[in-house]
Amino acid sequence: MSITRSIRTPIMHRAVEANGFVFVGGTIADDTSVSMGDQTRNILGKIAGYLKEAGTDKSRLLSCQVFLADMADVAAMNRAWDAWLDQGNKPARATVEAKLVDPRWRVEITAIAALA
Amino acid sequence: MSITRSIRTPIMHRAVEANGFVFVGGTIADDTSVSMGDQTRNILGKIAGYLKEAGTDKSRLLSCQVFLADMADVAAMNRAWDAWLDQGNKPARATVEAKLVDPRWRVEITAIAALA
Amino acid sequence: MSITRSIRTPIMHRAVEANGFVFVGGTIADDTSVSMGDQTRNILGKIAGYLKEAGTDKSRLLSCQVFLADMADVAAMNRAWDAWLDQGNKPARATVEAKLVDPRWRVEITAIAALA
Repeated sequence: MSITRSIRTPIMHRAVEANGFVFVGGTIADDTSVSMGDQTRNILGKIAGYLKEAGTDKSRLLSCQVFLADMADVAAMNRAWDAWLDQGNKPARATVEAKLVDPRWRVEITAIAALA
Repeated sequence: MSITRSIRTPIMHRAVEANGFVFVGGTIADDTSVSMGDQTRNILGKIAGYLKEAGTDKSRLLSCQVFLADMADVAAMNRAWDAWLDQGNKPARATVEAKLVDPRWRVEITAIAALA
Repeated sequence: MSITRSIRTPIMHRAVEANGFVFVGGTIADDTSVSMGDQTRNILGKIAGYLKEAGTDKSRLLSCQVFLADMADVAAMNRAWDAWLDQGNKPARATVEAKLVDPRWRVEITAIAALA
């Protein structure tokens, strides 16, 4: 089984494909000075880009993990999440609070999607 | 590769099947006033139901993530976990403490299982 | 689809294979009195052993989750991580702070890898 890795960072590849799946690493917002809604939209847009790079799209998301630096932000995160996804193809998801690598990061999302 | 999603909630599908796997989202107890053991048993029973819906069962669990609101509950959670699973087919697992979406929730579990 | 489980502990199997993947449960250091770098190297070596048992190796890691008891340790963990992996085949990864089961544990890592 071949493995395809995309977008290398110092510590990971942002997307790794194997056996019909793509695994997307923890994705954070490029601009952490903006609102939770804007940070979430930025992250989801970046994930969409990684999925596109793998030849798939958000309609094929299977499972996501959301880490919030402060659970008080969950409603704002959920609004952006809900607006981004079609109702019929939302993935499985878990959301917990956790301190992230950089204190300016307020939300980090990982994903597993099916390839096309 | 086709994707089958079951049991839609406002933010996710509780079980998403693709390519021989089913991904179960973060599952919490229906009644959060009961003991950790009872909450865990309730969650595991709900997961069993999601697996059954996908045509598989707990003997085919591959990996679980357990989030506890208070790590002091780990022994009680483990007792319920241990009683629920056959010794020969326990999945891989990780357990960490994390603040959950609702402060009344004390344990949340995600799962990946193999389809039959 | 057959499932192969290896290395049973009281609460899990350390490695579970199905459908071309191996899922490695939360792995902690054998000696938690040593430095973060040494704990991380010990964990990564243990994961390498689990992967070898499954007939694969670290070059086929797809996704890892790192939990740190104290995010102040992230740089030391990353140095050990970076030294262990070839630049061309780093997996996707997420790293968050979380209280672990035993307060002496400072880092716990899970992994998903492709079989050979």
